[in-house]
Amino acid sequence: MYLEKIKKPNDIKKIPAYAYDELAEEIRKFLIESISETGGHLAANLGAVELTMALHLVLDFPEDKLIFDVGHQSYTHKILTGRKDQFDTLRKYQGLAGFPKTKESDCDAFDTGHSSTSISAGLGMATARTLQGGKNTIVSVIGDGALTGGMAYEALNNAAKAETPFIIVLNDNNMSISENVGGVSSYLNQIRTTEAYLELKEDVKNKLRTVPKGKNMIHRIQSVKSGVKQLMIPGMYFEDMGITYLGPVNGHDIPAIVKVLKEAKRCKTPVLVHVLTHKGRGYLPAERHPARFHGTEPFDIETGLPKKKRTSPNYTDIFSTVMCKMGESNPNVVAITAAMPDGTGLKRFRNMYSDRFFDVGIAEQHAVTFAAGLAASGIRPVVAIYSSFLQRAYDQILHDVCIQKLPVVFAIDRAGLVGSDGETHQGIFDLSYLSEMPNMTIMAPKNKWELADMLRYSVEFDGPIAIRYPRGQAYEGLQENRADIEYGKSEWISEGKDVCLAAVGSMVRIAIDVKAALEEQGLSVSLVNARFVKPIDEEMIEKASKKHKLVVTMEENVLCGGYGENVRQYMDTLKSKAKLLNIAIPDTFVEHGSVDLLLKSMDMDAEGITKRVLDHLK
Amino acid sequence: MYLEKIKKPNDIKKIPAYAYDELAEEIRKFLIESISETGGHLAANLGAVELTMALHLVLDFPEDKLIFDVGHQSYTHKILTGRKDQFDTLRKYQGLAGFPKTKESDCDAFDTGHSSTSISAGLGMATARTLQGGKNTIVSVIGDGALTGGMAYEALNNAAKAETPFIIVLNDNNMSISENVGGVSSYLNQIRTTEAYLELKEDVKNKLRTVPKGKNMIHRIQSVKSGVKQLMIPGMYFEDMGITYLGPVNGHDIPAIVKVLKEAKRCKTPVLVHVLTHKGRGYLPAERHPARFHGTEPFDIETGLPKKKRTSPNYTDIFSTVMCKMGESNPNVVAITAAMPDGTGLKRFRNMYSDRFFDVGIAEQHAVTFAAGLAASGIRPVVAIYSSFLQRAYDQILHDVCIQKLPVVFAIDRAGLVGSDGETHQGIFDLSYLSEMPNMTIMAPKNKWELADMLRYSVEFDGPIAIRYPRGQAYEGLQENRADIEYGKSEWISEGKDVCLAAVGSMVRIAIDVKAALEEQGLSVSLVNARFVKPIDEEMIEKASKKHKLVVTMEENVLCGGYGENVRQYMDTLKSKAKLLNIAIPDTFVEHGSVDLLLKSMDMDAEGITKRVLDHLK
Repeated sequence: MYLEKIKKPNDIKKIPAYAYDELAEEIRKFLIESISETGGHLAANLGAVELTMALHLVLDFPEDKLIFDVGHQSYTHKILTGRKDQFDTLRKYQGLAGFPKTKESDCDAFDTGHSSTSISAGLGMATARTLQGGKNTIVSVIGDGALTGGMAYEALNNAAKAETPFIIVLNDNNMSISENVGGVSSYLNQIRTTEAYLELKEDVKNKLRTVPKGKNMIHRIQSVKSGVKQLMIPGMYFEDMGITYLGPVNGHDIPAIVKVLKEAKRCKTPVLVHVLTHKGRGYLPAERHPARFHGTEPFDIETGLPKKKRTSPNYTDIFSTVMCKMGESNPNVVAITAAMPDGTGLKRFRNMYSDRFFDVGIAEQHAVTFAAGLAASGIRPVVAIYSSFLQRAYDQILHDVCIQKLPVVFAIDRAGLVGSDGETHQGIFDLSYLSEMPNMTIMAPKNKWELADMLRYSVEFDGPIAIRYPRGQAYEGLQENRADIEYGKSEWISEGKDVCLAAVGSMVRIAIDVKAALEEQGLSVSLVNARFVKPIDEEMIEKASKKHKLVVTMEENVLCGGYGENVRQYMDTLKSKAKLLNIAIPDTFVEHGSVDLLLKSMDMDAEGITKRVLDHLK
Repeated sequence: MYLEKIKKPNDIKKIPAYAYDELAEEIRKFLIESISETGGHLAANLGAVELTMALHLVLDFPEDKLIFDVGHQSYTHKILTGRKDQFDTLRKYQGLAGFPKTKESDCDAFDTGHSSTSISAGLGMATARTLQGGKNTIVSVIGDGALTGGMAYEALNNAAKAETPFIIVLNDNNMSISENVGGVSSYLNQIRTTEAYLELKEDVKNKLRTVPKGKNMIHRIQSVKSGVKQLMIPGMYFEDMGITYLGPVNGHDIPAIVKVLKEAKRCKTPVLVHVLTHKGRGYLPAERHPARFHGTEPFDIETGLPKKKRTSPNYTDIFSTVMCKMGESNPNVVAITAAMPDGTGLKRFRNMYSDRFFDVGIAEQHAVTFAAGLAASGIRPVVAIYSSFLQRAYDQILHDVCIQKLPVVFAIDRAGLVGSDGETHQGIFDLSYLSEMPNMTIMAPKNKWELADMLRYSVEFDGPIAIRYPRGQAYEGLQENRADIEYGKSEWISEGKDVCLAAVGSMVRIAIDVKAALEEQGLSVSLVNARFVKPIDEEMIEKASKKHKLVVTMEENVLCGGYGENVRQYMDTLKSKAKLLNIAIPDTFVEHGSVDLLLKSMDMDAEGITKRVLDHLK
């Protein structure tokens, strides 16, 4: 049991080399058992066990800095830095985070969560280190998927001209890429990781002049073309940019990785170490279904099946079904995802209408402007991106879609609190960042039927339009309330006299409980489903403020710039004595934990809201 | 006079080939004369005259679609599509736009303004065309500078796998790049633009297997390295991605460009045409100082000097001076720009502290997260980016800077209305998009001295902090009001009894005139300089609403999520009878024109505001 000996950072260095593989297996076993209980990111972590061990053998913590791109693959790093005993609290409220957190450990150098940031952050740290005359090592670990994000390219482009030591580890678990490089002989690999190669590279231009029959070679290289070159020298892409390339190296061979990392540490300028890993390695269900075990609920180890059976559909399922139906009836509907065909529910659409499905990679910016180009030509693109990831395309939504008023549909999943993924993933800004954009229309459905209706409405709508819906199980109440969607109009679900609850999307379900609780206190309560967040329904607000003592807006979004503030702006223009209470996320980032606990912690559950309403009425 | 014969789209096709050069010279002369009167983008347009003519000879308008990246180089396109007579209104209120505008002409396929969007939009249009069974040609013209934006890379990455005809023209005016490719023989260039080459490329894998002594060649290619390859085959970078590369071609040789464009039109998949141009070509001052003639004020043709002499500094000058001083006194201060060393005023800082200056290219996303990495390591980075371009980095500010509360200083120039560049460039969203981010602090200076004070304050501040200041001449009034900057505190400039004007930054100057006008009406008026937009100064608001009948917020930002709404939110919690009037940009995009005219058009000039205040008091 070597794992027990690891209590704090750098303890791994005391483990004898012959025991590395055994330790790796212990870590794997621990990860599988632990995540099978708590849920979490499994496949990526299983793939990065040996790579992380090798990094810990070569680096000193906390002096050296290790930045994980996205960060969901940092579990082994957390184990090796003394956080193993907290894994039973993983992703739970006030427990261990599922991503690196500087607040959690001084061995976590930088908070991550979104993709493609690690090279920029690492280059910043390496530059700072050099300006300050430091000697420590900076390493960014980035997956091949994250390299499709334009930001990573911007960073590589800058790393290429940086004159400072900096190690980028490319954690490459894409089978197609590993096949491409399969033909590279171990000899080539070997010489590329040696000192001789590094020296050679320094004066490549001089070497060139000494190549015999150089002119002849030019013709021959020309005739074999770039396809050949890719088969032979996988790193040329990076070398082209001016970044030293080392590898590829087997990502499950610890001594091999340690060797190449030691070479990388000797480089005076940025170097890219290409490491080939297998996602899900060591757990058959995860190897076979890496996408399903990317982020997983608690599961049965033997079968790999989820412990809890899903009894009802979630909003993603509804989106998936409606998209397929619309795809059939409307040949102008196309679907775009940024590397999330599974997560967004577009896999079925892809299988049915492959020519109208576009997975652009982790490239939200391109996704949106590509959609703008389609929309400008008469196509109706549905761009399905999670709320927090769509933040990447703020400028494209505003500049490329809204200015020209193009009919792009934004299907914004994971809007509102997402729970266990924490502050980087909470979708609590979209109502604000979309509301401030002229020409934008924003909707939020109260239940699964309304999501379907809104989707059908949106592909017929002539302008930019967003539908935001939450993670998880779709609400199945209020089935009887299914009046047609009418532009800018809210839905009166019930009418009372004292308090009017105007709730956005997911908050309608909670508003029903608030209403019941207030009625127990003898109050007469109206319930309005906002439906449209932009434009706000002025007629509804006028009626609400005339008929009630208090209007309460409810939204899973920050207060600033959201639904409540915009309702307030209009209500203040009315000659009404009704007061207004805005229930919204306060001006703070919201950490991980179950959505129910998070809502409770902010007095945004039914009990908390009821109390706030009663206080306000006093 | 061939130019006179061009009255409408496609008229250029009637011009005899021998007259192309003469027509080019006429267009150049017209551009120089016209822009010397109106101001506008000169250097880029002079460089693209022949390229645009060649495109118009090969394409049919409006059926074919031409998308200019950024769009400031579209003047010749406007001339060739019948808009020559409108050039005296260029960039003026309700006149000809300085960028492509679909509303202006059906020959403008897509609105642009920000960098690196054209490949995404063009690929969307090409995809739509193919889905709809169309046959028209789609061309995106992108400069080499715009290729440093990550979004262009995301788009190229997707274009590479697209199975649809699509032409990308790389308008390459970078001297260093043209030297790199200078060694390429015309022979290589020739064969790359022929049918034989295109066929060869189709089955490159098959060819590979037939190459004699393939194994031997592997070793030899390996030994010459990528440096060699770049000298020989400049397009390999694109070919690596899977995009057919044609060129390079002399961008001032119309028959040569026409020839390669015709070849490109025959390709069944995306193709990149590499065109080498000279920025500023044909006008010596612009050739020598392309940066100064990028966007220019009216100038004297003979000397190249501006017609109007600058009498007082603008905010950029102040920023420039203070940065240099802070650079000297504080070795931790570094400066970052995204391809705007001139525009942001950081050129002097670069010359003085080259190791602490970083021009990252058109890469706002990387700029911000790179700064976050620096800040996480104890450096104080100042990121100088124009307001509308910083929209590109929304997610990075929120996710990489604000969550970790890192001390990054955002120096946001061109905030508020920028005038003649129009809707894509108006900096009217920053107060909203920054206010909704937790942990952010936002300031705006009333005059040049306050900008200096705020900059000095911000580099000592321990958290994310933004200073937004407008384009153009710095306000030099209110010099006597220079109390120390205190966190979150506004500044009372004068105290009255009836109306309190709480103005943000540039609006303080206007508020002085409003105050005078109101006082003429017998009202007693307070004037507050907000200084901090986030956090709002609750104490000031409390005092203002207790002492006055009406509080008026004034900001050059959209209403939604801005200063006014946040003041309203707080004021509504107070037991006060004071009313609140928010003066802000309405929920609409603001077109081009002088700032004064634009403010007037929205009743946001002193006269308009005075009237609105008096109306509100009734």
